[in-house]
Amino acid sequence: MFEQPLLTIEIPLIGEDVRILDQTLLPHRIEHVMLRDVSDVAEAIATMRVRGAPLIGATAACGMALAARTDASDTALHSAADQLRATRPTAVNLNWALQRCVDRLTALPEGERVEAAYAEALAIARIDAAANQLIGEYGLTLIHAMAEHRGGDPVRVLTHCNAGWLATTYLGTATAPIYLAHKLNIPIHVYVDETRPRNQGAALTAWELNQQGIACEVIADNAGGLLMQRGEVDMVITGADRVASNGDVCNKIGTYLKSLAARESDVPFCVAVPTSTIDPGMPDGTSIPIEERDPLEVLTATGIDDDGGVRTVRTAAEGVAARNPAFDITPAALVTTLITERGLIKPEHAGDVAASE
Amino acid sequence: MFEQPLLTIEIPLIGEDVRILDQTLLPHRIEHVMLRDVSDVAEAIATMRVRGAPLIGATAACGMALAARTDASDTALHSAADQLRATRPTAVNLNWALQRCVDRLTALPEGERVEAAYAEALAIARIDAAANQLIGEYGLTLIHAMAEHRGGDPVRVLTHCNAGWLATTYLGTATAPIYLAHKLNIPIHVYVDETRPRNQGAALTAWELNQQGIACEVIADNAGGLLMQRGEVDMVITGADRVASNGDVCNKIGTYLKSLAARESDVPFCVAVPTSTIDPGMPDGTSIPIEERDPLEVLTATGIDDDGGVRTVRTAAEGVAARNPAFDITPAALVTTLITERGLIKPEHAGDVAASE
Repeated sequence: MFEQPLLTIEIPLIGEDVRILDQTLLPHRIEHVMLRDVSDVAEAIATMRVRGAPLIGATAACGMALAARTDASDTALHSAADQLRATRPTAVNLNWALQRCVDRLTALPEGERVEAAYAEALAIARIDAAANQLIGEYGLTLIHAMAEHRGGDPVRVLTHCNAGWLATTYLGTATAPIYLAHKLNIPIHVYVDETRPRNQGAALTAWELNQQGIACEVIADNAGGLLMQRGEVDMVITGADRVASNGDVCNKIGTYLKSLAARESDVPFCVAVPTSTIDPGMPDGTSIPIEERDPLEVLTATGIDDDGGVRTVRTAAEGVAARNPAFDITPAALVTTLITERGLIKPEHAGDVAASE
Repeated sequence: MFEQPLLTIEIPLIGEDVRILDQTLLPHRIEHVMLRDVSDVAEAIATMRVRGAPLIGATAACGMALAARTDASDTALHSAADQLRATRPTAVNLNWALQRCVDRLTALPEGERVEAAYAEALAIARIDAAANQLIGEYGLTLIHAMAEHRGGDPVRVLTHCNAGWLATTYLGTATAPIYLAHKLNIPIHVYVDETRPRNQGAALTAWELNQQGIACEVIADNAGGLLMQRGEVDMVITGADRVASNGDVCNKIGTYLKSLAARESDVPFCVAVPTSTIDPGMPDGTSIPIEERDPLEVLTATGIDDDGGVRTVRTAAEGVAARNPAFDITPAALVTTLITERGLIKPEHAGDVAASE
C-alpha cells in the first residue's frame, strides 16, 4: 500500500466545504485552501492550485456538490458546470466528471440532488484512486520486464511534468508503476523533466519522488534527447490530459519532443492514463483545443530565495513578449503503450476503452 | 551596416588590459569587467561572463596576449594555453584560437611575441567579425527566398540559445542573416527558445532582437515542437559550438530535439557557423566532449525581482538532485544547411571547409 504523505483534496462529507492542498506554493510551502462555492473551485482550477487532469475532474465534481448545496435546480447545475468547464479547455477529465454529475443529478428529483452530488464527488474520487492502483499494477509489469533486462542495474525512467499523486486523488498515473516497483525493491532512477514554464517536474515530481526515497535527478527539458541518444533512458512514462480515440496523446507542452527522441533511440514511450482521459468524441489530436496561458509564466520563474521567501523573478528584459501554449500533441504512432486501468492498450485501440462510451 | 549597441570585448592596444561586457548580469545590468591576466580570462570564460563559441575564441586570444605580456617564453605560453583550454571543453573555437596563437607566437623570437600576441588577438576578432558579415549575407539568401514564398507575411524563424552579437565580436552567427534581412525591411518574426538552464534565449537573444525592433516572442524550450506541428515556423537557425567533419552539430542542449521536430514537419534546419567552429580532427559527433555543468543551474533560475534586484531562486525542493549536460549532438542527417563565411554548405561537406585545415 502506497503511503501518500498528504491529500490533494479532501472529499467533503454531505453539506461541507472542500479543502485542497494549494499546489502553487509547493514544494516551498504546504498550505491548504477551503473552497466554499463554485467560484472558489473555478478559481482554484484556473490558477492551478489544483492541477493534473484526474484531480481537476475530482475537484470539479466537488464544485458541483457545492453548487447543488446553494441551488440544485437544473438551471443552476448547468450554469455551474459551464463555469467550471470554462476554467481549462484541454483536460477532458474535467468535462467527463462534469457531464457525469449533470447527467446523474438532473435525472433525480431536486430534493435528492445535494446528497447525490456529494456522493458523486466521492464516487469520482474513488474511481480515480482505483484506476491509479490498476495503472500501477499494469505498468509494473513493464518496469519488471525492463528490470530483468537491466540485470540488477536501475531501470532509468524519464518523465515529464507531474503525473504523480499530486495530479490525482491517490498514487498518480505515470508515477503509479514507479511507486509500486519501488515498494518491491526494484531499483529505479527517474529523470524528471523540469517542465517549464511552471516547473511541475522540478517543483512537484522530484519532491514526490524524494519523499519516497526514489533516486531521481531533475534535468532541463532540453536534456532528455541527449540522454536517450547516449542510451541512458530505458523507458519514458508520462501522463496525459486528453487522448483522442485514435490514440493521439495531448499532454503538457514538450511531451511531443520527447516522443520524437524516444522513437529515434528505440526507447519505449508509455502514457499512463485512466480511461476517463480518453475522449471518444475526439477522432484525432488535431482538434484538441490547446490552452494558451499567460505569457508571464514563460518570462518568469518562481522559487525560494536565500532568505526563505517564495519569489518570482523575471528572466527576460522588460518589454520582451512571449507565447505560452500549455500542451502539445504526440501522434499515436510515437506512443508505444497506453497504461490504463483496463490494461496495457495499443494507442490505436484507445477509443475502444474510453470510460465515457 | 549593423549598429551594435555595445562591444562584447574591447580588443586591447598593445600592452593593455582587456575589457569585457559581463554577460552573467544581462539583461538586467550592463557592467564591464577588466581582465588583467590569464587567470582573469580563464575565470571569465568558465563562469560565462563571456560565452558563445566565437567570442570564447577571441577572448582566449586576448588571454594569450596578457600571458605574453607577463612571460613570453615557450613554457609560459603553453601553460597559459593549457589553462585557457581547460575552461570549457566543448566549443572548438577556443582550441582553434589557442592553437593559432601558440603556433604563431612560438615561431617568433621571444622579443617580438608580446606585440605579435596583441596583433593576433585583433586578427582573430577581425576574422570573426568578417565571417559573421558573410554568414549574414549567405543566410540572407535563404531568408529572402522564404520571404518570397511567404508573400509578404513575416518569415517565422525559431532560434535556440544565443548565437547573436553577444556570442561573437560582431553581428552574431544565427542572428546575422536576421539582422541583415531586417535592415532590408524583410518582415521577420523570431521565436526565441528560453534555453534553460541558463536562459540565454530569454535573457540575451530576446534582448538583442528587441533592441533592433525585430518582432520576437520567447517560448519555453518545450514549445517549438507544437509550433512546428502547426506550421507556425518557417525555418530554424541556430549556432553551434563544434561541427564534426561529417557535419554532426554540437550545440546547446536541446538543439537536437528541435532538429527532430523540424524534420518531422519539413522545416529547414540551418546552422550558422564560422569555419573555425568546424573541427577537422573530429570525424563525427559521438566523440565530442559534452560539458557537464553545475547541477545548481538546473535547480535555480536567475532574474530580476519586483524590487529591481537580481536574484537567484531555487525552484526545486531542498535535497533534490539534478544533471546538467550543456550540449547535445544533432546528427548531420537532420541538418539542412550550414551557413558559413564560405557559403551555404551541405553538412556532409563540413570537413572540406574547416578553417583549421
